[in-house]
Amino acid sequence: MPAAIEFYFDFSSPYGYLAAQLIDGIAEEYGREVAWKPILLGVAFKTTGSRPLLNIPVKGDYARHDLARSARLFGIPFTVPEPFPFESVAPCRATYWLAERDPGAAKALARAVFHAAFGEGRSVSEPQAVAALAADLGLDPEEVVAAVQDQRIKDLLRSEVDAAIEKAVFGSPYFIVDGEPFWGFDRLEDISLWLETGGW
Amino acid sequence: MPAAIEFYFDFSSPYGYLAAQLIDGIAEEYGREVAWKPILLGVAFKTTGSRPLLNIPVKGDYARHDLARSARLFGIPFTVPEPFPFESVAPCRATYWLAERDPGAAKALARAVFHAAFGEGRSVSEPQAVAALAADLGLDPEEVVAAVQDQRIKDLLRSEVDAAIEKAVFGSPYFIVDGEPFWGFDRLEDISLWLETGGW
Repeated sequence: MPAAIEFYFDFSSPYGYLAAQLIDGIAEEYGREVAWKPILLGVAFKTTGSRPLLNIPVKGDYARHDLARSARLFGIPFTVPEPFPFESVAPCRATYWLAERDPGAAKALARAVFHAAFGEGRSVSEPQAVAALAADLGLDPEEVVAAVQDQRIKDLLRSEVDAAIEKAVFGSPYFIVDGEPFWGFDRLEDISLWLETGGW
Repeated sequence: MPAAIEFYFDFSSPYGYLAAQLIDGIAEEYGREVAWKPILLGVAFKTTGSRPLLNIPVKGDYARHDLARSARLFGIPFTVPEPFPFESVAPCRATYWLAERDPGAAKALARAVFHAAFGEGRSVSEPQAVAALAADLGLDPEEVVAAVQDQRIKDLLRSEVDAAIEKAVFGSPYFIVDGEPFWGFDRLEDISLWLETGGW
């Protein structure tokens, strides 16, 4: 079985949200799985001197326009939640906690988090908000709140973020396909072509 | 006749170079002209806090990898000249000077500048280097050197850069298609689709 596509994203990344709607469909065409890896981009941003895209003068206005246009093209519901950017530590921790028990459920929770944030403009920063989304998936919300505050889970997220940074992940979405890095929503077509051709 | 596609770029922009190899072909498919508009991105970078991409830690390494990969995909010769980034005032001025007399020749000169820089890794910063490229096109090199130092041409370039910034151009390549802005080499497919469909 070929390796899973690694999909790194920050829950607070609007292009990460758009990519999340499409990457599994692309992978499926080529018989691939996708490993969803939520991370906290703030650490990487210290290295690259980046700032949250939508808050950058001029470029941020363009990005809002481009995001809405890209969402329309693919028929994806899209809104920018306020405040923006938002804290994404709690949904990150909850996802990794759940992934230990049930990777499929973890992906479903990550999808629900993204949909709540960028599909519906709701806050997903608070542990209670994440727990409510988890409850909709049949999970015990109190267990989720406890997991988010569990030191072992905190360390687990930290080690995942460190591992991503060691792999030179610096943005969202960021994909690794058979060792080959692709950054950005607008590299999805290149990923398809890479999977189809085996690279060039 | 529909409006020309506005193509803004910095001669020092490697993604601008790649886009320059493809945009006229795309435009031609839809019966459009392309107005090439070299600018100096440094002014816009002050507003957005951007830095030349290839010099950014981690992200710059990715960009070099992605540029080479993108060039291979389209069969475009590609190298990064040293030093990088380079001064692009002289070729900018020469292009606008020539555009007043012969827009077709100006585009040919711009192509020659890009090819010398990113196709062959040669310096194009000095007026003499630009003049030599112009001489290959049958122009008088001394006239080019004089034009680059002419105050009227200096002012002409400044007004073009100001006009671009007023249109919110902040990166390279940056396109305006019937009023719609597109930023980045990886938006060329969207531009094709926009031209084909009239927008969405």
